[in-house]
Amino acid sequence: MDFTRMGKSLKPKVVIVGGGFGGLNAAKALAKTAVDVILIDRTNHHLFQPLLYQVATAALSPGEIAEPIRAIFKRQKNVLVIMIEVIAIDKQEQKVVLNNKETIDFDYLILAPGASHSYFGHYEWEKYAPGLKTVTDALKIRERILLSFERAEMTQDAAKRKAYLTFVVVGAGPTGVEMAGAITEIACKTLLEDFRNINPIETRVLLVEGCDRVLPSYSPKLSQHALESLQQLGVEVKLNTRVSNITTDGVQVGDEWIYTPNVIWAAGNVTSPLVKTLKVDLDKAGRVMVDPDLSIPDYPNIFVIGDAAHCHNESGPLPGLAPVAIQQGKHVAQIIRCSLAGENRTPFQYKDRGMMATIGRAKAVALLGRMEYSGLLAWLAWCLVHIMFLISFRNKVLVMMEWMWAYITYQRAARLITDRTSADT
Amino acid sequence: MDFTRMGKSLKPKVVIVGGGFGGLNAAKALAKTAVDVILIDRTNHHLFQPLLYQVATAALSPGEIAEPIRAIFKRQKNVLVIMIEVIAIDKQEQKVVLNNKETIDFDYLILAPGASHSYFGHYEWEKYAPGLKTVTDALKIRERILLSFERAEMTQDAAKRKAYLTFVVVGAGPTGVEMAGAITEIACKTLLEDFRNINPIETRVLLVEGCDRVLPSYSPKLSQHALESLQQLGVEVKLNTRVSNITTDGVQVGDEWIYTPNVIWAAGNVTSPLVKTLKVDLDKAGRVMVDPDLSIPDYPNIFVIGDAAHCHNESGPLPGLAPVAIQQGKHVAQIIRCSLAGENRTPFQYKDRGMMATIGRAKAVALLGRMEYSGLLAWLAWCLVHIMFLISFRNKVLVMMEWMWAYITYQRAARLITDRTSADT
Repeated sequence: MDFTRMGKSLKPKVVIVGGGFGGLNAAKALAKTAVDVILIDRTNHHLFQPLLYQVATAALSPGEIAEPIRAIFKRQKNVLVIMIEVIAIDKQEQKVVLNNKETIDFDYLILAPGASHSYFGHYEWEKYAPGLKTVTDALKIRERILLSFERAEMTQDAAKRKAYLTFVVVGAGPTGVEMAGAITEIACKTLLEDFRNINPIETRVLLVEGCDRVLPSYSPKLSQHALESLQQLGVEVKLNTRVSNITTDGVQVGDEWIYTPNVIWAAGNVTSPLVKTLKVDLDKAGRVMVDPDLSIPDYPNIFVIGDAAHCHNESGPLPGLAPVAIQQGKHVAQIIRCSLAGENRTPFQYKDRGMMATIGRAKAVALLGRMEYSGLLAWLAWCLVHIMFLISFRNKVLVMMEWMWAYITYQRAARLITDRTSADT
Repeated sequence: MDFTRMGKSLKPKVVIVGGGFGGLNAAKALAKTAVDVILIDRTNHHLFQPLLYQVATAALSPGEIAEPIRAIFKRQKNVLVIMIEVIAIDKQEQKVVLNNKETIDFDYLILAPGASHSYFGHYEWEKYAPGLKTVTDALKIRERILLSFERAEMTQDAAKRKAYLTFVVVGAGPTGVEMAGAITEIACKTLLEDFRNINPIETRVLLVEGCDRVLPSYSPKLSQHALESLQQLGVEVKLNTRVSNITTDGVQVGDEWIYTPNVIWAAGNVTSPLVKTLKVDLDKAGRVMVDPDLSIPDYPNIFVIGDAAHCHNESGPLPGLAPVAIQQGKHVAQIIRCSLAGENRTPFQYKDRGMMATIGRAKAVALLGRMEYSGLLAWLAWCLVHIMFLISFRNKVLVMMEWMWAYITYQRAARLITDRTSADT
């Protein structure tokens, strides 16, 4: 593929695949470097995934956490944004292959394709238990939750009503904990006055985790805080428990068969299949085993960053978090600058500033530096950090307003059911 | 169908079909009347249709102009909201039939099912030229417009690029005029800096109208103002011209075949087919010929209001506008109160306060009382009136902010492409 404007340029060409945190920050960090950047994404927007669960639970609208990628780069004239899917990498020929069979050459390649949900080999579960990676996923889950309440309101059959009012979240990492907390708040606060035939006491929200504690990547103390907050809210937490079957009718949780159309998958990631076409070593989650400088063995001009990279520090492989991807994007941009200037490249070092998860209204846990926080203080820090990292000023203002509004009124604003065809379960 | 709470009540039962402007206002006006109200809608939200074109053109998010119906009535305890489709009316037995075969009895029935697009018998055109009635319609159009720009940016083929950058709006009523103006603004202002290979001069926006002027329901003077504003913006207006074919490749406009995947239908309404099951006289647009009190002949307890009713005043049948539906909803509530009190019913009289349409940034036409306005003043009045009539305080604030933001920055915020399957043309 040849581009009118780019075709004539003699500058080195940097192709970036993926407009998530890693890809976006790599492109931004190359603003003043004499290269042409081509940023390719399947969608037209950068999505602020840490708040996606709030779209799924009707607290925010998709437009408030997504920003058109080309709007982000409109003034950075060395970036060309293309909306298309990359289906393969030809590392020998230095080309990426697009789904329309065309190819794009590169001098440097930064792969940041992200991850999707792993159903541990049970792909058939996906349609009954959607995960939460894209705007479409979030809208599907939102629709399913809201429709369940509508159906519970209408039915005269107590068993059916019970099933509609049962919600099972699989996986107690940050997304699972946040989803379970938010669904409980919807059922017990937001909808309290809106329905005539539903008693919120009938609602049952289960959070199922295979490990022995929630938020397994946090300290045992914070896990305990999170567990207590969840239980106070009314979430039933099942630890050391596995899901062994999911059908259109319900889910097998340990020994118990639970009737429900509402199963939400928040367990396990698998890397985008694109990285398989690199033909290099992958770990068991499908991540690329990168060299310390984030390039792949024998190809110093091809880098893999973000959720698709397996990269170590002292305490093991780095987690799939936004700060890791952001720092990696910036680091790779720096390496490209060094390489163009003939300087040596440095290994990537992650500066861990902490992590945080919210459980519900005024409830969160946070690890900041070496300090651990929980409760209101952690929740305020969580709100602040998430607003700071939102991409545009407009989104910062809108999200802040929505949160203040929700805090005061207990309402969730984006309660729209727009398309029933995808949720006819 | 029997409802736990309602089943035991001995109060007269008022069933309202449709949660648009008419149905909503009828239910609200019955707040202090000793009746049980059952409000039935296919969707879970009341949609502020006059601003739907702004969702289609990425200026607003759906959640900003839609409000869950049950949230509107959460404190009005005599209203039960049900989300389901009504498929027939049995006027003899005083029942409505639901799509799950169950029925609901009524003492009074208010039918406010609205209208959908009429393709003048060419139903096959619908998939190539979507209309604009629901949130899903608006999102489909938004996706189609945004994808066209993405594809124009990528293609090397000049003829294809020309087709992607051509937009044809059929029908120059308020919706058509507003769509054509907004698309031109997107192409020539919003996207100017965002694309590298598109020249906004290549964009062509056509507005096609069968009559001899735009906004045919307005005065010739305002039509002329609107026409001039459209032409200033760069819209190509074709009057006295008919569309005779639409395919996946383009549209036949008069003698000219125009290649484009972007045809938007804003011409002609047809009433919801539900009213056919009443077996009464309909006009040629399928509207029910109602008596002066808005009831149907021989059934004084069955009313039809809004876009589904053919109701006369001195100057002909009333137009399908929000103020007509709102006033009719309130009037029918009043009649029901009189009827319960044994008083006489009065005929409906429309208080015409005017109408307005916007063309673009700081451009609008308005008829207020007997005064005609155009330009900035009309546009400010348009903004004010539309914000005033939005249902919730939250939506008023959000929409006002979005508009101020857009006015200052020339940006359109909700530029999300979320699902490509429906727009693979």
